[in-house]
Amino acid sequence: MKKIIMITVLFILYLTPAFAEDTPPTPLSNKAAIELVQTHANYMWTMVAAALVFFMQAGFAMVEAGFTRAKNSINIMMKNLMDFSVGSLAFWAIGFGLMFGKSATGFFGTSGFFLSDFTPDGDPWVLAFWMFQVVFAATAATIVSGAMAERTKFTGYLAYSLIVSAVIYPIFGSWAWGSLFNGSGWLEGLGFIDFAGSTVVHSVGGWAALAGAIVLGPRMGKYTKDGGIKPILGHNIPLAALGVFILWLGWFGFNPGSTTTADKSIAMIFVNTNLSAATGCVVAMIVAWLKMGKPDVGMSLNGALAGLVGITAGCANVTPTSSIIIGAISGALVVFSVLFFDKIRIDDPVGAVSVHGVCGAWGTLAAGLFNMGGVTLSIVMVQLVGIVACFAWTFTLAFLMFKMISKTIGLRVTPEEELEGLDFTEHGGHAYPDFTA
Amino acid sequence: MKKIIMITVLFILYLTPAFAEDTPPTPLSNKAAIELVQTHANYMWTMVAAALVFFMQAGFAMVEAGFTRAKNSINIMMKNLMDFSVGSLAFWAIGFGLMFGKSATGFFGTSGFFLSDFTPDGDPWVLAFWMFQVVFAATAATIVSGAMAERTKFTGYLAYSLIVSAVIYPIFGSWAWGSLFNGSGWLEGLGFIDFAGSTVVHSVGGWAALAGAIVLGPRMGKYTKDGGIKPILGHNIPLAALGVFILWLGWFGFNPGSTTTADKSIAMIFVNTNLSAATGCVVAMIVAWLKMGKPDVGMSLNGALAGLVGITAGCANVTPTSSIIIGAISGALVVFSVLFFDKIRIDDPVGAVSVHGVCGAWGTLAAGLFNMGGVTLSIVMVQLVGIVACFAWTFTLAFLMFKMISKTIGLRVTPEEELEGLDFTEHGGHAYPDFTA
Amino acid sequence: MKKIIMITVLFILYLTPAFAEDTPPTPLSNKAAIELVQTHANYMWTMVAAALVFFMQAGFAMVEAGFTRAKNSINIMMKNLMDFSVGSLAFWAIGFGLMFGKSATGFFGTSGFFLSDFTPDGDPWVLAFWMFQVVFAATAATIVSGAMAERTKFTGYLAYSLIVSAVIYPIFGSWAWGSLFNGSGWLEGLGFIDFAGSTVVHSVGGWAALAGAIVLGPRMGKYTKDGGIKPILGHNIPLAALGVFILWLGWFGFNPGSTTTADKSIAMIFVNTNLSAATGCVVAMIVAWLKMGKPDVGMSLNGALAGLVGITAGCANVTPTSSIIIGAISGALVVFSVLFFDKIRIDDPVGAVSVHGVCGAWGTLAAGLFNMGGVTLSIVMVQLVGIVACFAWTFTLAFLMFKMISKTIGLRVTPEEELEGLDFTEHGGHAYPDFTA
Repeated sequence: MKKIIMITVLFILYLTPAFAEDTPPTPLSNKAAIELVQTHANYMWTMVAAALVFFMQAGFAMVEAGFTRAKNSINIMMKNLMDFSVGSLAFWAIGFGLMFGKSATGFFGTSGFFLSDFTPDGDPWVLAFWMFQVVFAATAATIVSGAMAERTKFTGYLAYSLIVSAVIYPIFGSWAWGSLFNGSGWLEGLGFIDFAGSTVVHSVGGWAALAGAIVLGPRMGKYTKDGGIKPILGHNIPLAALGVFILWLGWFGFNPGSTTTADKSIAMIFVNTNLSAATGCVVAMIVAWLKMGKPDVGMSLNGALAGLVGITAGCANVTPTSSIIIGAISGALVVFSVLFFDKIRIDDPVGAVSVHGVCGAWGTLAAGLFNMGGVTLSIVMVQLVGIVACFAWTFTLAFLMFKMISKTIGLRVTPEEELEGLDFTEHGGHAYPDFTA
Repeated sequence: MKKIIMITVLFILYLTPAFAEDTPPTPLSNKAAIELVQTHANYMWTMVAAALVFFMQAGFAMVEAGFTRAKNSINIMMKNLMDFSVGSLAFWAIGFGLMFGKSATGFFGTSGFFLSDFTPDGDPWVLAFWMFQVVFAATAATIVSGAMAERTKFTGYLAYSLIVSAVIYPIFGSWAWGSLFNGSGWLEGLGFIDFAGSTVVHSVGGWAALAGAIVLGPRMGKYTKDGGIKPILGHNIPLAALGVFILWLGWFGFNPGSTTTADKSIAMIFVNTNLSAATGCVVAMIVAWLKMGKPDVGMSLNGALAGLVGITAGCANVTPTSSIIIGAISGALVVFSVLFFDKIRIDDPVGAVSVHGVCGAWGTLAAGLFNMGGVTLSIVMVQLVGIVACFAWTFTLAFLMFKMISKTIGLRVTPEEELEGLDFTEHGGHAYPDFTA
Repeated sequence: MKKIIMITVLFILYLTPAFAEDTPPTPLSNKAAIELVQTHANYMWTMVAAALVFFMQAGFAMVEAGFTRAKNSINIMMKNLMDFSVGSLAFWAIGFGLMFGKSATGFFGTSGFFLSDFTPDGDPWVLAFWMFQVVFAATAATIVSGAMAERTKFTGYLAYSLIVSAVIYPIFGSWAWGSLFNGSGWLEGLGFIDFAGSTVVHSVGGWAALAGAIVLGPRMGKYTKDGGIKPILGHNIPLAALGVFILWLGWFGFNPGSTTTADKSIAMIFVNTNLSAATGCVVAMIVAWLKMGKPDVGMSLNGALAGLVGITAGCANVTPTSSIIIGAISGALVVFSVLFFDKIRIDDPVGAVSVHGVCGAWGTLAAGLFNMGGVTLSIVMVQLVGIVACFAWTFTLAFLMFKMISKTIGLRVTPEEELEGLDFTEHGGHAYPDFTA
């Protein structure tokens, strides 16, 4: 409350000696003071951005609930809530250390567990950085939720949520974003460009989602024996749309916040993020209209998300015009991808694999192809290496993990439970008791 | 990720020469460094505000959906999504250049199309400014959606959305907010006060909405042949209320963000914005209570929005006490205005014409009447000129445009489609399949 | 719009004399300029935080509506809307002066009513500070709404809302957070630690809620004559979950914003806030699971809120590890507390007394027990004095106030109205006419 007065006083005290003694202040003190104010701005920006990215959790929850059936809504809220809560604790205890701790090899870190790098009298930047990173880790975790909706056992899901935030995400992250304190990850060392995480966050989430959807199998009644595909309709489209608006908002923290610095570069990142999302949305609508005969709301919403995922890797190193091209391709890609996965009978209720996995890969490639600083074969090759490494690591580990959970805790509910709805069987409640019997 | 370290290093490098050489630094370098930090703060503030204003799109979508029927909810989500997506592209290609490009005449700009003013090695402020302006343009566009809800053909709506963001809004905007790079608009030249857009954004949206509602005609069953008015109830009041809370939040970007500068003036703008909204809400409730016998939720919610629109022009040049008076009049005005338009059988499902058109005009007048710096007849006259110019330009052009769309693409769905609901006929879906047959 | 150019020009003008005259600038000017930029950052941070805290109003509205029945949803929206709107005006006219005005006694302030401390040419910080404080006052007021849901007369509620924002909250607040301009409150003088208001905001809200719930009595049908407890189910769990996500987001303004300064300390406050919330959520789920057999969504959501309330007092003076312990105890406490109040037949539909009253008291104690700077018996005793003083003041006054409202305006609706639902009887509407008859 009175801190502002205090800090003013401190400032005055700090600057006073020279003034009081009526001699010019040493130049250094002004320099240091200027740097300090810039540092304060960096803290503010990074924390505001972290808050916006945190809010994406609400966006994911609303999108997933809106696109699925009412009888599983409580379960979806619980999964999203626990992705963030369990994930925060897992990333505090283990993940952050594996991802950003001191690394001898470039393959994972080995310090900083339990925020042990922080001492009350030390530099609090590690806390700001942790805060910004934990919301990213939780984003990767929560992407998977949508692809596994309406049929996953809650205890099995909790196990997944813990493992992905503690191990799978951070280790890949350490390859691309390296160590905070020394050295760097091996992908980073090659010159891999993934500014805000098309690969690190979204493809990791998307490929883990793919593994989960495969191990689980499709929802009952989704694919008929004669080869037909029966759409299972979402129960609340305004909620899903609200979710997409929230995600779009959150991305204004996700991409420009990845500077972790308050500087001029955030302007272009904002513009690129917005133009890619807008274009993805329009193009997905048009492509869906051409292919399906109507401007479909689900495809349009996913088109916006596809554009956002697509620009995430390159948002700081491509031009606004390139962003429009990247978003357009993302928007088309997501429609074809959703139809493709349905065709090969991988049931992904919200299109998470297409939005985050496929468009994440495309965005990572695009960050190389549209690099403002010039494109070389070597840059493009490194981007491809990163894309392949991400798929190989994430899909393999996630597949093994889901198989193990399936064999031990159990990953899928019984057909009776699935029919009844997970809200009642897993959580003993109903999401809308006044509207549904 | 490591950018903060980098920027610190850059700062040190930048400041180092003088220090390293053990001579006092040239005074200019400190000055430039201080200015740079302030510039960074301005970028941060403008981008955070832009993000908040973007979120208003979600607010408008929720208000419109909540105040209308379930069977048109998908259509409403699509309209709002496309207002922003198509609008972003239209404003990128054409609108921004018309509004802020170099202008020889003061009537429209002729440069800066496709963000061509920006070069990767140039000043990125144009990007920050574009980002802030595009969310304003989209706000104007999306206001119209509510007044045309539940009966507008989707393709016709897309045509409107494109034209308003590309031409109608930017040209009026150029009169009042002038050119970014040289000269100024003719209204601006007269001394017209519209700090954050009571006229430029809200009245433009409101008068275009009026034209749309007139050209479309009322929804089936709204007005009976014997002169009766049949209320058509909104299907989700908590969603509408959430929308108003989101809009109120977004206005904390809209009004104080219009400084595009992080300085002390934002405090008074925040307070004025909040006090006017609160008073508008309370007064609208009371007036509706007196006239209708109950504290009506729709009128109360619109009262808050009326207060927000009313203070938008004058938020930076009236006192907090004046803001309360402005908000009170806005809150009363919106109730009478809504009842008036219903009486003359102009069907505006959400009250957009009253909230944005009427209260926008009132707010613009009020910015002159309550001007802290003193009120003269000339100031008030200029405000009236602006109000009239806005109505004449916007209503005329929008009316012609909607007539043309009506004759060509078609503006209104068939009675059968209207009865069935636009969700199914226009988009092939249902918003709530688990609750409605 | 052109203000950024203007401010740059001003900067240049300000710095120019020395430069133009080709003499070194006086050192003071650089110092003052640096301080000014820091001040601008403080304004920005405080206003952004205020916006986030404002948004908590939406969170409370959604949580309360989601956890109660559809037939009272409009009433809940109106109560929450009026808490903020009436509260803003009451705090402007009276509350702010009582809380932060000049105080001779340390028991309440006696200046600054109607923002009279502010003059257009004076320091606008008082406006920034008012804006940040008004959203806190409204939070305290709105907490009560949930405990009194589904049976309170709207006019009686308006009277409560006015009194709490004008008198009850500000006077207690003045004890703990003192005067803005001179002196300090008596609790503050003892060394009471309540950084962001576990006691000042949350316990005040919680104990007033307890008084309200007692005076009102339970909802019809909640407790049967044979001693049974009949759960009354919430009608929209995704909405309640959205509300909790919004509240969690808002708390990133509530706690770190309480610095009212953009500095490094916000990082630890962010991390502590997040870790306590996450732990509270997980622990409440586990405890509920053990006691009730299922991972209950209501308890889990309240667990997150309990963790947030619990860390509010100590967020700036405990370590991240302590935050986890504080959150864990909050999460367990809230489950036992909710069950306890149900057992003694105090009907609190959303658990507000447990979340805000009980966990607020615990958090205040914890701020002493886990104080980073060392724990002494005297610190702990002062915390206890604050906790007891808050209960004594708030519960007593609120109880008397609710009794008086009950005797005069009336506090509870008739059984017929309660059965019919307050939406229709109090507001003449239905929240979901397309879904419910």
